[in-house]
Amino acid sequence: MDNRLSDWKLLIDQALDAALPSSDVHPELLHKAMRYSVFPGGKRIRPLLVLSAAIMVDRLRHGREVSIEPSMLPAVAIELIHSYSLVHDDLPSMDNDDFRRGLPTVHKAFGEAEAILVGDALLSLAFEVVSKEEACLLMGPETSVKIVHELASASGSLGMAGGQIMDISPIRPDIGVRHIEELSDRKTGALIKAAIRCGAIVAGASSRELEALTRFGELFGRAFQVRDDIFDLDEENPLTFPRILGAEEARLYGLKLSSSAVGVLKPYENEAKELLWLARKVLCFS
Amino acid sequence: MDNRLSDWKLLIDQALDAALPSSDVHPELLHKAMRYSVFPGGKRIRPLLVLSAAIMVDRLRHGREVSIEPSMLPAVAIELIHSYSLVHDDLPSMDNDDFRRGLPTVHKAFGEAEAILVGDALLSLAFEVVSKEEACLLMGPETSVKIVHELASASGSLGMAGGQIMDISPIRPDIGVRHIEELSDRKTGALIKAAIRCGAIVAGASSRELEALTRFGELFGRAFQVRDDIFDLDEENPLTFPRILGAEEARLYGLKLSSSAVGVLKPYENEAKELLWLARKVLCFS
Repeated sequence: MDNRLSDWKLLIDQALDAALPSSDVHPELLHKAMRYSVFPGGKRIRPLLVLSAAIMVDRLRHGREVSIEPSMLPAVAIELIHSYSLVHDDLPSMDNDDFRRGLPTVHKAFGEAEAILVGDALLSLAFEVVSKEEACLLMGPETSVKIVHELASASGSLGMAGGQIMDISPIRPDIGVRHIEELSDRKTGALIKAAIRCGAIVAGASSRELEALTRFGELFGRAFQVRDDIFDLDEENPLTFPRILGAEEARLYGLKLSSSAVGVLKPYENEAKELLWLARKVLCFS
Repeated sequence: MDNRLSDWKLLIDQALDAALPSSDVHPELLHKAMRYSVFPGGKRIRPLLVLSAAIMVDRLRHGREVSIEPSMLPAVAIELIHSYSLVHDDLPSMDNDDFRRGLPTVHKAFGEAEAILVGDALLSLAFEVVSKEEACLLMGPETSVKIVHELASASGSLGMAGGQIMDISPIRPDIGVRHIEELSDRKTGALIKAAIRCGAIVAGASSRELEALTRFGELFGRAFQVRDDIFDLDEENPLTFPRILGAEEARLYGLKLSSSAVGVLKPYENEAKELLWLARKVLCFS
């Protein structure tokens, strides 16, 4: 399993490389900075979720694995959107981070205005990737429009951007776990859920399959944030699950969420191998 | 003619109002700030270009005017993208403007991080508008995907974001008119051209009509920037047509561009009334 997902990760990186304009295309600085923000990148969990959901639905619909080529398009788009959100989140007026994954953040390496434009251009590029002629041929126009809509609503004011503004807003003293859940569901959960839904939609999931995968995505997204909060060393942020629930309670909550996520896919145990492996590997609370 | 375009402007504002989440939808601050950036707004030239191009093609294709309902969708999306670009351009690390149209800029009124997120959310919303179910029904899925692609490429690194990075890049001493043309074509021209093309595409333009309208859009966009440079009081910016060509030469250049734009639509004189009126009214160099 580890091998298969490592292979996919390589293919995802190749597809990202092909989608991003080369650094010698004018304006060179912008393209160089866009690439800097995407490579070497992290674990590529969101695009792996796209491909894993698609292959599960392929097995259910066709009794076998079908090409990952069509689902690679939303996979790339999702990772571009994720990259854009990191670049903007790191900005001085937001989280003001100087380093990401051991390297200077985009605004540290290229300048603040440049980082804003890198994010803007990555978001536009995501929509270009899923609407270009090739995408329309591979996914069909109806599916292509649906994918655009999934991405747009997950990243907009009711999704990721809405979660980010909650994250930087002044904190009221009466904040409870419901507030953190909502923040997490928007800021992190929306894009993770969209990743899984996009894979399912491209592969032609039935409404029942889509419903199960949507629920899996919601639980995965929430658990992912709980885990991130626990392992993140930022003890200054009051808007985290451990700060509200306490460390041990947060761990138990994460464990419960990840078990529920796995439980949702129980009826598809054989077909959902990759998704279940990702849930067990990524959502680890022990 | 003035009446008709004023009516359209009202309809555009209504459609923008309907597309933007209400200020009492959570997160309220973000939605309030998004609305602040869009209303009262300017002359709505880009959405008017969308509708005007669509109605020209309607007359050519059907011998009569057809509903503006389908072209209102890209019209709204284009204005949302234009609004986002203004919010980000005004930021302290970019043009650092405190006022726009006589009111405090978004970052002055709501904060810098908030302004970045307002822009981000407006860009996502633009793609949501042209990909939602209603859009797919009104335009058809093939057209909807084409519109997404027009918008995405016009706003990305080879379009508007690319032009903006050229605008803030350190200036080399050997800059010539070719550089200003390229900057203008990306930063301003790409979205204006996309507006006209979107109207044409939604109305089902033939390839010959689309070609003529594309050329009209290129000339209109360039002339629009020349005019903006001439009337703008920012004499500190060295990257303008008057600074490179001299004031009188720039005026003559603008006049030449606007005449050429009008000339391109000569064969469609009767059908292109609105576009020709806009060209004469907006691209005024006397």
